[in-house]
Amino acid sequence: MNEFELIGQLTRSLPANKSLVVGAGDDCAVLDLGLPDRLLLFKTDAVVEGTHFTSATPPEKIGHKALARCLSDITAMGGTAVSALITLALPRDFDPARVEKIYSGINTLARRHNVSIAGGETTLNPERLLISVAMLGTAPRGKCVLRSGALAGDAIFVTGELGGSLASERHLDFEPRLAEGRWLAENFSLHAMIDLSDGLAGDLRHVLKASHVGAELLAGAIPISRSARAASRAETSAKPPLLAALTDGEDFELLFTVASKEAVALLDAWKKQFPKLKLTCIGKITPGEGVTIRDKEGVRPLVAHGYIHFA
Amino acid sequence: MNEFELIGQLTRSLPANKSLVVGAGDDCAVLDLGLPDRLLLFKTDAVVEGTHFTSATPPEKIGHKALARCLSDITAMGGTAVSALITLALPRDFDPARVEKIYSGINTLARRHNVSIAGGETTLNPERLLISVAMLGTAPRGKCVLRSGALAGDAIFVTGELGGSLASERHLDFEPRLAEGRWLAENFSLHAMIDLSDGLAGDLRHVLKASHVGAELLAGAIPISRSARAASRAETSAKPPLLAALTDGEDFELLFTVASKEAVALLDAWKKQFPKLKLTCIGKITPGEGVTIRDKEGVRPLVAHGYIHFA
Repeated sequence: MNEFELIGQLTRSLPANKSLVVGAGDDCAVLDLGLPDRLLLFKTDAVVEGTHFTSATPPEKIGHKALARCLSDITAMGGTAVSALITLALPRDFDPARVEKIYSGINTLARRHNVSIAGGETTLNPERLLISVAMLGTAPRGKCVLRSGALAGDAIFVTGELGGSLASERHLDFEPRLAEGRWLAENFSLHAMIDLSDGLAGDLRHVLKASHVGAELLAGAIPISRSARAASRAETSAKPPLLAALTDGEDFELLFTVASKEAVALLDAWKKQFPKLKLTCIGKITPGEGVTIRDKEGVRPLVAHGYIHFA
Repeated sequence: MNEFELIGQLTRSLPANKSLVVGAGDDCAVLDLGLPDRLLLFKTDAVVEGTHFTSATPPEKIGHKALARCLSDITAMGGTAVSALITLALPRDFDPARVEKIYSGINTLARRHNVSIAGGETTLNPERLLISVAMLGTAPRGKCVLRSGALAGDAIFVTGELGGSLASERHLDFEPRLAEGRWLAENFSLHAMIDLSDGLAGDLRHVLKASHVGAELLAGAIPISRSARAASRAETSAKPPLLAALTDGEDFELLFTVASKEAVALLDAWKKQFPKLKLTCIGKITPGEGVTIRDKEGVRPLVAHGYIHFA
């Protein structure tokens, strides 16, 4: 049983109550505690030494990444982050100076986005450092963007450029798209949104599954990062750049869908609002299931794990 | 630098914002998001294999304990638990059946207290199981009980009996005092409250430090559990029962203070409301600093770590 199968089984019958609006399965849980204008967003995310960073990673960047990942999930709901709690599971013989630098990375990012660090705890995890961040945010009632609202015919957009995040270490100092996500949710009727952590191909599938639709991507439109292109040139064993952009993961850009008739106005407004950040229409939502990719040779299915099946 | 020194240093200058009412240093953080009648409580707590349970602990009890600890913290604010997120950091070769049983323990307890499990995540922690629970609760505005309100002259109460929790495995299946904590906060002007996780002596000191007061305990009044007495009889190397009740930890009972003139009415009402659960006045809050303990031989200081100094 892999992680996704296990989660699927566990989340089938979790306890609910009347304040739970959206439980497991979206970027954040959504709670209604009776605020007239807002819903609450609730999220946890953990980073572990050896998986999300190494013992050589600068500690400020570990702290930055731990908080930024949670912020990115709040953003993907069109929300505003309010407060975080930090759980530090420290190995034996931890260096207090290293822990202070981790907090320095957390605090700098938190201050930039007006997020309070409301406390947390330290505990012992003898073999390796693990940081779990719990975050609380809000989204305007009626403007909370789920994964489940994509409709056939929608245009699919992504922010920024994709691929090569691990190789270029962008995953350690990316800036979560908080202003962008909030602006999009406030000004347009987004149908679905997700942040790209597992890779475009994988995360798009989460949206499609939740929305019961399919998608057709335009190969030539996928915004491939400079680092994905460079890695491909440098090593013959590296992924082709398009495959890297589809599958590398840890981009922490936003993917969203919007009715195609809104697409041009949205792009125009975006260019005025965020002139330095690319926004690209990469394809459309289709009826039915599955993902296809179109290039000059035709349309082909994009199979599981994002690898392109050359039929 | 020990855990408390490190936490002290880290929490000196954490980022705040206008919604943060109480940050690091109480049982829960307290947030004001503008609900007219309630404040939000926000808490995380982690349990780690080898520290809080062993590889032989029945998995349902691991799940129960992980959630119950967080519930106990919500209770210690006089609050009501609303929702939790579960982070499971799983070793390699985890047994999915074991994980399901952990969730079964979590879900049973959550349903009993009408707490939603709003999701969470699984991640890899190769060497051992770690579970972090994030919890959201509410407390009536003006009825949230902090550690910092104890006043000289207050009576000090504890629920239940203390000591021997680890030896008797009560720490694995204790029932958090949710109904009791809420009833106390709603019906009496509690000055301070805390849940007993580190042991009476240590946790009382957290209240005294936050409130800038001292305390005098009555040795003969401390409610010593049957398991603490039994352990002491069974092994000559065991702690004396009173010392066990003062320092064993993991009791998860409530300690609170209330104006002495309310003490008798509170005890009478308690006996009617919760006839099966002991409530004991164990001493009083004093001006100044430090803890003393009174027995038939006189008054002696209770020194750090709870060990009684025989002067």
